[in-house]
Amino acid sequence: MMRARVPLLLLLGILFLASLSVSFGIVHREHQQSQEESDSRGTNNPFYFNSDRFHTLFRNEYGHLRVLQRFDQRSKQIQNLENYRLVEFKSKPNTLLLPHHADADFLLVVLNGRALLTLVNPDGRDSYILEQGHAQKIPAGTIFFLVNPNDNENLRIIKIATPINNPHRFQDFFLSSTEAQQSYLQGFSKNVLEASFDSEFKEINRVLFGEEGQQQQGEESQQEGVIVELEREQIRELIKHAKSSSRRSLSSQDEPFNLRNRKPIYSNKFGRWYEITPEKNPQLRDLDLFISSVDMKEGGLLLPHYNSKAIVILVINEGEANIELVGQREQQQNKLQEEQEESWEVQRYRAELSEDDVFIIPATYPVAINATSNLNFFAFGINAENNQRNFLAGEKDNVIGEIPTEVLDVTFPASGEKVVKLVKKQSDSHFVDAQPEQ
Amino acid sequence: MMRARVPLLLLLGILFLASLSVSFGIVHREHQQSQEESDSRGTNNPFYFNSDRFHTLFRNEYGHLRVLQRFDQRSKQIQNLENYRLVEFKSKPNTLLLPHHADADFLLVVLNGRALLTLVNPDGRDSYILEQGHAQKIPAGTIFFLVNPNDNENLRIIKIATPINNPHRFQDFFLSSTEAQQSYLQGFSKNVLEASFDSEFKEINRVLFGEEGQQQQGEESQQEGVIVELEREQIRELIKHAKSSSRRSLSSQDEPFNLRNRKPIYSNKFGRWYEITPEKNPQLRDLDLFISSVDMKEGGLLLPHYNSKAIVILVINEGEANIELVGQREQQQNKLQEEQEESWEVQRYRAELSEDDVFIIPATYPVAINATSNLNFFAFGINAENNQRNFLAGEKDNVIGEIPTEVLDVTFPASGEKVVKLVKKQSDSHFVDAQPEQ
Amino acid sequence: MMRARVPLLLLLGILFLASLSVSFGIVHREHQQSQEESDSRGTNNPFYFNSDRFHTLFRNEYGHLRVLQRFDQRSKQIQNLENYRLVEFKSKPNTLLLPHHADADFLLVVLNGRALLTLVNPDGRDSYILEQGHAQKIPAGTIFFLVNPNDNENLRIIKIATPINNPHRFQDFFLSSTEAQQSYLQGFSKNVLEASFDSEFKEINRVLFGEEGQQQQGEESQQEGVIVELEREQIRELIKHAKSSSRRSLSSQDEPFNLRNRKPIYSNKFGRWYEITPEKNPQLRDLDLFISSVDMKEGGLLLPHYNSKAIVILVINEGEANIELVGQREQQQNKLQEEQEESWEVQRYRAELSEDDVFIIPATYPVAINATSNLNFFAFGINAENNQRNFLAGEKDNVIGEIPTEVLDVTFPASGEKVVKLVKKQSDSHFVDAQPEQ
Repeated sequence: MMRARVPLLLLLGILFLASLSVSFGIVHREHQQSQEESDSRGTNNPFYFNSDRFHTLFRNEYGHLRVLQRFDQRSKQIQNLENYRLVEFKSKPNTLLLPHHADADFLLVVLNGRALLTLVNPDGRDSYILEQGHAQKIPAGTIFFLVNPNDNENLRIIKIATPINNPHRFQDFFLSSTEAQQSYLQGFSKNVLEASFDSEFKEINRVLFGEEGQQQQGEESQQEGVIVELEREQIRELIKHAKSSSRRSLSSQDEPFNLRNRKPIYSNKFGRWYEITPEKNPQLRDLDLFISSVDMKEGGLLLPHYNSKAIVILVINEGEANIELVGQREQQQNKLQEEQEESWEVQRYRAELSEDDVFIIPATYPVAINATSNLNFFAFGINAENNQRNFLAGEKDNVIGEIPTEVLDVTFPASGEKVVKLVKKQSDSHFVDAQPEQ
Repeated sequence: MMRARVPLLLLLGILFLASLSVSFGIVHREHQQSQEESDSRGTNNPFYFNSDRFHTLFRNEYGHLRVLQRFDQRSKQIQNLENYRLVEFKSKPNTLLLPHHADADFLLVVLNGRALLTLVNPDGRDSYILEQGHAQKIPAGTIFFLVNPNDNENLRIIKIATPINNPHRFQDFFLSSTEAQQSYLQGFSKNVLEASFDSEFKEINRVLFGEEGQQQQGEESQQEGVIVELEREQIRELIKHAKSSSRRSLSSQDEPFNLRNRKPIYSNKFGRWYEITPEKNPQLRDLDLFISSVDMKEGGLLLPHYNSKAIVILVINEGEANIELVGQREQQQNKLQEEQEESWEVQRYRAELSEDDVFIIPATYPVAINATSNLNFFAFGINAENNQRNFLAGEKDNVIGEIPTEVLDVTFPASGEKVVKLVKKQSDSHFVDAQPEQ
Repeated sequence: MMRARVPLLLLLGILFLASLSVSFGIVHREHQQSQEESDSRGTNNPFYFNSDRFHTLFRNEYGHLRVLQRFDQRSKQIQNLENYRLVEFKSKPNTLLLPHHADADFLLVVLNGRALLTLVNPDGRDSYILEQGHAQKIPAGTIFFLVNPNDNENLRIIKIATPINNPHRFQDFFLSSTEAQQSYLQGFSKNVLEASFDSEFKEINRVLFGEEGQQQQGEESQQEGVIVELEREQIRELIKHAKSSSRRSLSSQDEPFNLRNRKPIYSNKFGRWYEITPEKNPQLRDLDLFISSVDMKEGGLLLPHYNSKAIVILVINEGEANIELVGQREQQQNKLQEEQEESWEVQRYRAELSEDDVFIIPATYPVAINATSNLNFFAFGINAENNQRNFLAGEKDNVIGEIPTEVLDVTFPASGEKVVKLVKKQSDSHFVDAQPEQ
C-alpha cells in the first residue's frame, strides 16, 4: 500500500516543494544577476510585492477584498513573518461589506476615505466612524461589518491578520448566502436548523437562504456578493447609533485611535512621520505592533536608517518612490571545504514603488526612501516593543556619530575626525533634500 | 559524497513527505466526496479521531497508557495544535502506575473513578485524592505515580501534554526495570553508578535492577510492566498521608481543582455545562487552557455556536452523539488564472461519536452537538484566555440577534424583522430539545 | 511553465531534503550501532558538537569569529533549540573587533581574559570592562565593538544568539570596508550617499570606503579584516571612559553581571557550581536563560541528575571530562501492526569532552559528568524560569529518596528499605569522588 502511493506522494511532494522552493528559486536567480543590485523594477526583489501579488478573495462592481501572498514564500530572510498576512479592502461610496467573522485577529487601518465599523458581540455592539489614519483591533471570531458612508469618496482599508488555527491562513465566515458563496448556517443539517430556530425548514430556508421562490418575490432575493449597495436612508440610520471615535480617540482601550491626531515624531519641510508604538496604546501592545503614516514631499529623501528589532511592512498609499534596502547574501566559497568559511556580500535591494505596492524591511537592514512624487505611505512594524530607529546620517538620532574617534580611526580609511566631519555634515535630520545643490 | 547519498536521501525524502502528506491525502479524498458532507461515520473527517487513532505506549492486564496521533498530521486546518498531544490512562482497581517523569508539561483530568496522585520533588512530596472532574498540572520533569485506590471502579484519566524538547513528542522516564522496559538508571555506566551510590555494582544491580539471582529470591523479582497490583494495606498506608483535595479545592494555587464543584455556566433540563477558565485558576492561566465537562440528556441539542479564539479538544466520556462542524474548503477555480481568485465553499464535517472518541473544533468554526443517548463529554480549550462562546440561536448569548435590522435587511433575503423573529423564536438557550413537536 | 521547472524543483527539493535529513541520517546510523551506547569518541552522538562543528565567519592573525552548526539539524530530540545559535569569538591581546550590529539578540559571556565592550546608541554609548564570568545582553540592532585590552592574555567570548528575521540564522552588519568584506554603507547608491552626507561621492568614498588612491596615502588604507590591532595609547584612551562593571555588578538592570562574584550554589572539595537564574537578573529573565560556570577537580564526579525544564548548552572551557547522558530511542516493533505499540529503549549517549567542545543536555534527560582533569565548563540553560535540578544520588536534592517506601517496594526488586539505604549511602552531595575506595 505504501508502495502503491509513492507516485502520488512524489507528485504531492513536488507540489509541496514547489511552494517551498519559491524563495530558493528567487535566491537562485539573484545569484545570476549583477552583483551591484537587483533589476530596477524590482521584480526579482524578494522584499517587493507589487499589486499582482494580491489574491482576490471577492470582487464585484462595489469593491474587492484581497490578501497578499505569504511573505515567507518569497524569502527565507523574512521567515519570522510567517504568522502574518496582509489584507486589502476597497469599496465604493454607499456600500456595505456584509457581516462576517474570521479565524484571525486583525488590526484594521483606514488608508483613505471614511468607514462605519460595527463590532457585534452576544452582549451588544459597538459602532465607530473611522477617518483616515484610524486603527482598530478586531479580535478573532468577532462578527463585524463595514459601511462606506460617503457619497463620493472610495474607502480603502488595510488589515494585518494573525491567523489562529493555522499560522499561514484564515477563513472568512459569512452569514449571507449570495450568488458568490453560501451562508455558513447552511452547513448545518435540516434537523439541527429546525430544532435551533424552533421552525420548519421551509420557513428557515425562505427567511435566511432564499433558495425557494426568490424569483417570485422581489423583496426576498439573494445578494450578488458580499459587498452590497445601501440606500442613504439606511446609512443615516446606522450612523445615528455610532460613536464618533474621532471625538474620543485614545480615551478608552478598546476604541479606535488615530495616528494622525498626534504630533509627528519627525517633521520638517521634506516630510512628516506619524507613529503610535505599543508603549502608547493597549491594542498595539497586545499585538506587539507599531503603526506609522509618513508624508514626504517630491524630491525628499528619508535618510538611511534601520529598525533595531521591528520587521516593517510598508504599503504605498499615494505617490511614487524609490527604495534602497541593504542586506547581505551568502557568497559561494571557492576555498577548501574543510575551512567551512561562510561569507556574506553586501547586496542592494532596490525597487520603484507606486500606489498599492508593498515592501518588507527586515529588522536591522539599512534602508533609504526617495520620494519621486508627493508621497504617503503606511507601515506596520512587527515585533515592535522597544524598537529603536537608528539613523546613519543627519544631525539627530545619528548612531555613527556616537562611535568614539579612536575607533572611527581604525574603522574607516580616513581619520576619525574626518569621518565625524563627514557623517555630521548633513545639518537636517530624518528627511532631507534628495538633490542638494552642492 | 553528496551524490552518493542521493538515493538514500530520495528515499528518506519520500518517507518524510509521506508523513507530511497525510493531511494532503485526506484533503484530496474529501474533494472526491459529495459536496454535501463527509461520510456518516466520519472516517475521512480530519477533525474526528476514533479510538484506533491512539498509539499504545504500554498495556497489560492492569491497564494501559496511550497517546493520540498528532493533530497536525490530520489537517493543516489545525496546525496550531502541533505543540499538544493527548494521553489516556486507564487502570483497574487496586493498581499503581510506577513512578516516572516526562519531558512534557501535563494537565491531568480524572474522567472516571478516583485516583491517588503523588508528585515527588527533592524537597518533599504532595499526595492528593482526585475525584471525577479534578484537574492538576504536573510540571515537566516532576516524578509522579498514580494509584487507583478503589476496590471495584476503574480509573480513567486524560492528560494534555506540551512537550519541551521537541514540539511534537515526549518520553516517559521510568525508574523501574520491568519486563517491558529498562530503568533509566541502567543507562549509566558501572563506574558512575558505583561512585554515585558508593556501593559495589553487584549490590546496586541486585537492589535496583534485579537482573541477577531474581529467580532464586522471591521478594526481589522484576515487575511485569509499569502498571502493577497493590495490596489494600499498601494503599491504605499511602492514602493516610494524602491531602484530600476535595475538601480544599481551589484553596491553593498548586493544588487540584474540581470542575464539577462549581455552579454550571449553562444549565437547563436538557444539559449542564461546567467550565473553569484561565481567568479563574492559576494552573490553567499558566497553560492558557480552559476545561469543560458537559452533561446532556438523550435527545438534547447543544445549539450552534462557535468559540471566538479557543481550539477545542473534545473527548467523549460516556454516551453517544452526532456532531456537525461547519468549515470551509478551498474550491478549485476554472476562471482565468490571472484573476487568482480564491474561493471557499461551506463544508459540513459530521461524525457519530461514542465513548473514547476525540473530536477537534477549530476556533471560530460553528458546531452543534446532538446527544443520541445520555451523554457526558470533556473538553480542553487551547488558547483560552478571553475566549468567548458566540451562539447562533436561542435566547441568550445569541450574536445574530445583535445585528441591527437595517443590516439584517440586506444580509438575508427576508426583511430584518422577519429574520429577528426567526432567530429569536427558540426560547430556550444553549441546550434545547433536538426534536421539538412543531 | 510548472512542468519546465520540475527538474530544477526536484534538485532544489533534494537539497532541501538533504538539510532536513541530517538528523534522520544520524538516527538511522544510530539504529545500526550497538544498543549499549554510541561509540566512545561520540562522533555519532547527536548531542555532541566538537570544535569542527563551528563554521568560521571570519578569521585572521588577530582572532576569529565562528558560529556552531544548527542544533536542530543534528537531532529531532532538541528541535526546540531551533531558534538558538552559539557564537564563539577569540582575539589576541591589543586588538579590536570593529563596530557592527546583527539581526539577533545576544547574551555575551567572557570565558577567558578581559574585554572592553562598548554598546553604541543614537543617544550615547556605554563601555564596560568585563572580566571572566561577566555576562551582558546585546539587544538586536545595537552597534557594538569589543577590545581585548590585555597585553598578553587572549580573550575568549561565547554568545548565545536568538535571530529575529529568521529563526535559524542572522547576519553581522559591519561599517568598515575591509579586504574581507564591504561596508553596508556601500550598499546605498551614489545619489543617496551624496544627499545623506551632503558631500560629493568622491569625498565620501575617500573618507569611508578608501577605494580610490588608498595606495598613495598611507593613513587612508583599508583594514585587512574585521579584527584589527590597536596601539596601547588608543586602548588607554578607550578604557578611560569605560565604567568598570566589576565595581557595580548587579547594581543596574542593563549593566554586566558576574557569575563568579556570587556564592556558589553547590560547593565541596570536588567542585564548585556558580549560577545566575532568570529570577535573579532582569537580562536573563528577558531571555529566559540561566548561566552556570562549574569548576571540578580531576577525579570528581557530578552526580547523576536532570533539569526539570531547561535544555542546557554546555561549553568546555578548560580541561577534559567524560559525560554520560541517558535518553531513550524508539524501538522497532515486530508485533502486529494493529497494536501500534510504541516502545522506547534506554540509550546511553557518551562523549569524551575537551576544550571548545559543546554538548547538549535535553530537559529531563539524566546526566553525569566525570572530570578526567581539572575542569571548567560553562552552561546556558534555555527555558530556564522555574527550572529545578533533581539529583538521583547523594545526600541533598535527591529526589529518589523522597518516594515513599511502600512505592519503592514495588518499584525496585529489593525492599523499599534496602533501596532507601542504597540511594542514601553516598554521604556527599552534587560532586563526589569518581573512584572511591570501597
